[in-house]
Amino acid sequence: MTIKISIDCMGGDHGPSVTVPAAISFANREPEVELVLVGLEEKIRAELKKHKVITHPRLSVLHASEVVTMDDSIETALRRKKDSSMRLAINLVKDGQAHACVSAGNTGALMAVSRYLLKTIPGVDRPAICTILPNQKDGPTYMLDLGANVDCEPEHLHQFALMGSALVSAMEGKSRPTVGLLNVGEEDIKGNEVVKHTAELLRADHEKGILNFYGNVEGNDIFEGTTDIVVCDGFVGNVTLKASEGLGRFVKKVLTTEFKSGILNMLGALIARGAIKAISRRLNPSRYNGASLLGLRGLVFKSHGGADAYGYEWAIRRAFDAAKYDVLSRIATTIADLMPQAEVSAKHAEVAAGGVEGKIIVNESTQQKTA
Amino acid sequence: MTIKISIDCMGGDHGPSVTVPAAISFANREPEVELVLVGLEEKIRAELKKHKVITHPRLSVLHASEVVTMDDSIETALRRKKDSSMRLAINLVKDGQAHACVSAGNTGALMAVSRYLLKTIPGVDRPAICTILPNQKDGPTYMLDLGANVDCEPEHLHQFALMGSALVSAMEGKSRPTVGLLNVGEEDIKGNEVVKHTAELLRADHEKGILNFYGNVEGNDIFEGTTDIVVCDGFVGNVTLKASEGLGRFVKKVLTTEFKSGILNMLGALIARGAIKAISRRLNPSRYNGASLLGLRGLVFKSHGGADAYGYEWAIRRAFDAAKYDVLSRIATTIADLMPQAEVSAKHAEVAAGGVEGKIIVNESTQQKTA
Repeated sequence: MTIKISIDCMGGDHGPSVTVPAAISFANREPEVELVLVGLEEKIRAELKKHKVITHPRLSVLHASEVVTMDDSIETALRRKKDSSMRLAINLVKDGQAHACVSAGNTGALMAVSRYLLKTIPGVDRPAICTILPNQKDGPTYMLDLGANVDCEPEHLHQFALMGSALVSAMEGKSRPTVGLLNVGEEDIKGNEVVKHTAELLRADHEKGILNFYGNVEGNDIFEGTTDIVVCDGFVGNVTLKASEGLGRFVKKVLTTEFKSGILNMLGALIARGAIKAISRRLNPSRYNGASLLGLRGLVFKSHGGADAYGYEWAIRRAFDAAKYDVLSRIATTIADLMPQAEVSAKHAEVAAGGVEGKIIVNESTQQKTA
Repeated sequence: MTIKISIDCMGGDHGPSVTVPAAISFANREPEVELVLVGLEEKIRAELKKHKVITHPRLSVLHASEVVTMDDSIETALRRKKDSSMRLAINLVKDGQAHACVSAGNTGALMAVSRYLLKTIPGVDRPAICTILPNQKDGPTYMLDLGANVDCEPEHLHQFALMGSALVSAMEGKSRPTVGLLNVGEEDIKGNEVVKHTAELLRADHEKGILNFYGNVEGNDIFEGTTDIVVCDGFVGNVTLKASEGLGRFVKKVLTTEFKSGILNMLGALIARGAIKAISRRLNPSRYNGASLLGLRGLVFKSHGGADAYGYEWAIRRAFDAAKYDVLSRIATTIADLMPQAEVSAKHAEVAAGGVEGKIIVNESTQQKTA
C-alpha cells in the first residue's frame, strides 16, 4: 500500500532548503511513499533542481501562495492566510488525499489550523502533542502533552493516557504499554489535586484491564525508561522538553570545547572517533524529531522548527509509520471503546483517516504537477 | 568571623559514611568554619576514627538518639522523632548556636521541621527551595521553587522572585541579577493565568526599579544562562530538575559505554584523558549540590540524598557562603522593603539569623564533646 504524505515545505526556520532535500531523501529510501510538496512552487522547484530532481514518480508539488511565519498569530493563520502551505497540506489530509501531513511551522498555528480543519476524534476534548525521547533502555519514551494544553483537568490527562497508549501500541507493537503519570514523587499522596485525581482515573482503568498504569513517575524516569508513556500537562511537558534540549546543547558544547582544547585531546578524539561518532549519533536530538498531534481526525506531525534535513526526514518517517500502522483508527477505537462519553463510533475517524483514493487533483493546470 | 554550621550527619542515603568525611574535608579546607556533627554519637565517632580524626579544634559532636528516614512521613518527623538529628541540627540554628544547617534528609520532612522550628520571614507566605544549575555562560542559574510548593498563586511566585534576587545578589555579588519567569513561550500572551498574572507583578516591580525582570523564559534558557534566576512553581521545578538529572545520567552512560567499546576508543580516551577529566568535572552534578530553603528565619541547606562526600562538601560550602554573605538578613530586608504586607521589620529575622554567640552547650556531659 502506498502512503501519501503532504509536506508543508515552507514551515520551520529553514523552509524548502531543509524540507525539500529531506523529502527527496525519504522518497528515495522508501518505495511505498508518495510525497506532496506544498508551498511556493517556484521555491520548491528551485530546491528540487538544486538536488538534480527534475521529475520523480513519487514527488509532486502543490502550489500555495501564502506562508504561515513563526511569528504569525493563530488568528492570522486561521482567518487570513487561507492559501497557506500549512493549511493546504492539512487540507489534503482532510479531503482524504493524504494519509498524513508534516509541518515544521509554528506549533500554535499548526494545532489551531489542524483542529479547525480536521476536528477532534469523538470522545477527545483536547488534542495533545506527543513526542519521543531517548532512554537508558535504548527504547523511546513517549511523552505528552508538550504544550497544546497549558491547563489540564484530570479528564484531559486521562484522555492523553489513552491516546498515548493506543499510539505506542500501534507504533511499537506493544500490546500493553506502561503509562506513568508525571509527578513530584512516586507516592500516591504526592502532587497537586489534578494529578491525584488523574491517578484515580488511571488506576480505575488499570483495574479494568484497559490501561497498563504503572503509577506516578518522576522527571528522571523519562530518561530512565521506567514507562513507555509519560503523561503530563502541556506546561510541564513543554518546559521539561525544552530544558532537556537546552541541557543537550550544553553537554554538546562542553564535549566539543574539551576535545578541541590541546593537541593531545584532539589526537585522542581522532583515535576514538568511532566512540565520538557513536556518542554524537546516540545523543543527536534529530533522531527524535517528529511529534504527533494526537486526538485529531487525521494524522499531523510537527517537526522541530530548527530541524535540519536529517531531522526533518525523521519527522516524515514518523508520519509514514503512523499511517502505515493505522494509528488514527486505533486511537479512535480505543477512545470510543473506553470513554463512556464517546458514543459516536470510531467509524467516523476511520473514514476520515483511511480514505485516500486515487490521485491528488488540485487545479492541475498550474498548481499541481509531478516534479 | 567564624561561621558555625550544624550537620545532620544521619540524613541521606549514606549517612555518616558520606557526611562525616565531607565535614572533615571542609573543616580542613576552611579555617573560618566550625562544624557541629549531629547524630548517633557512636556512629559519628566511628567514622571520625576511620578518618584518623580523634580531636579537631573545629569539629564537635552532638548526640541525637533518633533518625528521620527517607520514608518517614512529615507527621513522624514533626511529632514523633523529637530527638532526631535533623531536628537537633535545625534547633541549633533556631537557638542561635549555628549560622546554618545542612541535611541530606527527606526534603518534605526537612522543610516541615525547618518551618515549624524557624518560622517564615515576615512577608513570606511560603518558603521555597532554590538550587543552582550550570549554564553555557559558565555561571550558575539559580532556580526556584523545586518542590516545596506544588500549587502556587502569583503572590507566591512573586515572593520567590524577590527572595531569589536577594540570594543571588548576596551569593554572586551581582547588584541587579536578572529574573526570568519560566513559561512555554517568550511572548506575554503565553502560559496559564497564574504565570500571566505573576508576569504583571514582576513587570510592576521592574518598572519601580525593585527587580530586574527579564520576562518569560523557556526551559532551554535555564542551561543557556539567559537569566541569573528562573522562577517557577514547585511542580514544574521539581520535574525539570529531576528530568535534567535523568538526562545527565543517560549522557554519562552513553559516554562511558562508547569510550569503553573497543581498544581504539579506549586508547583515544586514555590519550584525551585531560579532556575526559575536564568534561567529567564540568558535567558532575555534585558541583551543584546544596539547595537552600529560602524564606525561613534561619539558613537551611538541603543536600541531594544520594550525594557522595564530594557533593556533600559542596552543600556545606554553600551554607558557609550563605552565612558569610549574610543571605538571611538580605532576604529579610528585601522582602520587608518591597512587600507592602511585610510590615514587621526585617530586624526580627536578622536577630534570629545573626545571633550566634559563644560555645554550643548542649548537655556537655554526654551529648556534646569536642571530637
